[in-house]
Amino acid sequence: MLDIRTPKGTVDYGPLEAYIIDYILNTCTSIFKTHGAISLDTPTFELRDILLNKFGDDEVQIYNLEDQGGDICSLRYDLTVGFSRYLAQTKLKKIKRYQMGKVFRRDQPAITKGRYREFYQCDYDIAGDYLPMVADAEIIQTATAILEKMNLGEFILKINSRKILLGFAQIIDVDQNKINSAIDKLAKIGWDNVQKELIEKGVEKEKTEILKNFIEIKTPTIENLKENKYLKELRNNAMANEGIEDLMLLEKYLKIYNIKNYIFDFSLARGANYYTGMIFEGFYDNYDCGAVVAGGRYDNLVEDFLSNPNMRVPCVGFSVGVMRIFSIINNNKNINYNITKVYISSSKQLFLEDRLSLLNELWNNNINAETYYNKRINIMEHKKYCKKNDIPIMIVIGEEEIKNNEIDVLLVEEDINEKVKREDMIKYIKEKVDKKKKIL
Amino acid sequence: MLDIRTPKGTVDYGPLEAYIIDYILNTCTSIFKTHGAISLDTPTFELRDILLNKFGDDEVQIYNLEDQGGDICSLRYDLTVGFSRYLAQTKLKKIKRYQMGKVFRRDQPAITKGRYREFYQCDYDIAGDYLPMVADAEIIQTATAILEKMNLGEFILKINSRKILLGFAQIIDVDQNKINSAIDKLAKIGWDNVQKELIEKGVEKEKTEILKNFIEIKTPTIENLKENKYLKELRNNAMANEGIEDLMLLEKYLKIYNIKNYIFDFSLARGANYYTGMIFEGFYDNYDCGAVVAGGRYDNLVEDFLSNPNMRVPCVGFSVGVMRIFSIINNNKNINYNITKVYISSSKQLFLEDRLSLLNELWNNNINAETYYNKRINIMEHKKYCKKNDIPIMIVIGEEEIKNNEIDVLLVEEDINEKVKREDMIKYIKEKVDKKKKIL
Repeated sequence: MLDIRTPKGTVDYGPLEAYIIDYILNTCTSIFKTHGAISLDTPTFELRDILLNKFGDDEVQIYNLEDQGGDICSLRYDLTVGFSRYLAQTKLKKIKRYQMGKVFRRDQPAITKGRYREFYQCDYDIAGDYLPMVADAEIIQTATAILEKMNLGEFILKINSRKILLGFAQIIDVDQNKINSAIDKLAKIGWDNVQKELIEKGVEKEKTEILKNFIEIKTPTIENLKENKYLKELRNNAMANEGIEDLMLLEKYLKIYNIKNYIFDFSLARGANYYTGMIFEGFYDNYDCGAVVAGGRYDNLVEDFLSNPNMRVPCVGFSVGVMRIFSIINNNKNINYNITKVYISSSKQLFLEDRLSLLNELWNNNINAETYYNKRINIMEHKKYCKKNDIPIMIVIGEEEIKNNEIDVLLVEEDINEKVKREDMIKYIKEKVDKKKKIL
Repeated sequence: MLDIRTPKGTVDYGPLEAYIIDYILNTCTSIFKTHGAISLDTPTFELRDILLNKFGDDEVQIYNLEDQGGDICSLRYDLTVGFSRYLAQTKLKKIKRYQMGKVFRRDQPAITKGRYREFYQCDYDIAGDYLPMVADAEIIQTATAILEKMNLGEFILKINSRKILLGFAQIIDVDQNKINSAIDKLAKIGWDNVQKELIEKGVEKEKTEILKNFIEIKTPTIENLKENKYLKELRNNAMANEGIEDLMLLEKYLKIYNIKNYIFDFSLARGANYYTGMIFEGFYDNYDCGAVVAGGRYDNLVEDFLSNPNMRVPCVGFSVGVMRIFSIINNNKNINYNITKVYISSSKQLFLEDRLSLLNELWNNNINAETYYNKRINIMEHKKYCKKNDIPIMIVIGEEEIKNNEIDVLLVEEDINEKVKREDMIKYIKEKVDKKKKIL
């Protein structure tokens, strides 16, 4: 017996789901285009060696293709590594691009929580050697614009710098990677478990207490830090000082962009190894689903692929949490995905050829229209179908209408019938449809 | 040394390529939506057993995923099998859907000829048990509308029916599958090689000669066949007779749809095993790249997945040859993919913050705008950049402009400079940009 299902951790996106995903990706696309970004599309799988040593402990989750002779490949785990490989291969030194596509992770799936093995990712990145923090500020501006345009309520961006985290790790003399991977889990597992993990990794308890105080720092402006006991120490560490300067400059540009809903939060760490500077995550206030945008600066990833040590391609970018935003919309909005504007019915007989002729005229005028292709004719059921599917206009033709060269129009919502001359149909329908344009 | 390239048979779609593919897929989407179709999105890989025994000899080209514990999967080979699995799984009995996505075939790649191992497919299918040939006619109407809207010149659809081919195979007492797979190669390898293959497969030479005469039949209307020596024989075969009746009915509906550019061509066979009725392929007159749309009726594929023998989900649909249309556009059109409308430059000094402020205003008004993020300021180079990239408007600010609260606008193509009040900027730019809306 054939097992009729999708593979574990994957799902079919049916009409409603595909409609919502389209909405999310189109919203992002329109913002990216405003920024003059171009679209890039890399393969679904890469040479396996390209993907290795980029994702730390999570590497075991990479899907491998069978060796069927030829290249040894794996499915992409994110869109960032393919983008960096593209830059290294083409030797492009600057580009602003977006990319949307599915990525694959053999994680423990939890579909109800929006954790899939195959899921959409939507990335925006700026590569190039520019004046400090200008591209970073654009990244924050873009992420903010997307969260605003999604129209899902208030949100806040948490901003930090890997340089500050690294500087602080230097100050207390602890390996940076131990700190990052542990405090990245703070929101999920709580401080006690983070501390436990740190101590297991060999960090002295005292130092974890100092770290705790440090990562509790949250401030709406770096200016406020003047009063903070750690600021002087951070200023004395070259790396941390660079981080502080970066964030101050970022703040200045965010003011120009009139962006207010952010906070500097020293507990923000981000998981991936490749970040080198500013990092951030964005959260909607009313939804407890984790970060809906996240990213940062990764200045060395492209160089990892390059044989020429003189070429440098600094990058900064972010991912949109497409599946999380999808879950929010899917769980909280009552969406009608039907895009049909006109349904053609008939009275008493089939009048199939007359209906097809009307249909053709509507299609050729770019009006979304349908008719029925089966034997049953029951106007009442068609009316119910239109109501249920939010189809605003139903056209009925019968012997009389055909004889008089007219159509009988039902405005479904208003329950109003009107006779319209056949030659006026397109004009009439266009006017009615324009009034009923639908937004998600 | 890391091998920095994409896997064999795959490519990166850079800005120009991604722009063309977007154009093709968006053109198709707009037509599908006109027909009230909904979007469906199935996983990139399926349980391997689902894919087996669907693609005949070509099955060796399926990409398998490594067995890493859990499901045994393979990358999808087309979008039709996943769609049929979806129908069987959801027990939906009718749907009109489109799907776009990449499919994967370990074929011998020939990138220059547009033959890739990973490539886009774009499908439109109508499932449901309807009055005869009505959905088939809509399929032809839709394929025609797409080829028209692509605006790449004259085209013709070749139409046939698997029922006629099967009936003829019965008449000359030869296995249908031998005939289909052989004559499907006619255009590629020529009759002599087709005949050779048939004889190797055990078909008597005499019968191949009869077959040759039969498949030479091409007619703009089934009516014309009345004079044909084979018609009586075909009419006496139940299966072939059904095929003839189907095509006559189809012709009637195509007349209603005012579709003229088709020919009934009995040499059209199509490769896949699953077709059961009307089949067709469409070709642009001026491009020698093979079929750019192709499809047909497959009434039994969904049932293959069903345990309930009483459920029937007849289907008809087609694929758009996205990569072939891509090759046509890419090789024959001079396309500028830049979507930036306004470039902000500065005179004498950086004026970075003033430029960012202008940029923000443009972005917030949905005007695609860019500025420069590096130190160098050279208006002449910026002007060259705008010309090269077809950016219609360049804004320059300098000390004087800032003092006077105005901007200096250069209409790049016309080489006209105008001073505009800062507060009139958005209105001014919108008017200019609207006049320069660009079509592919």
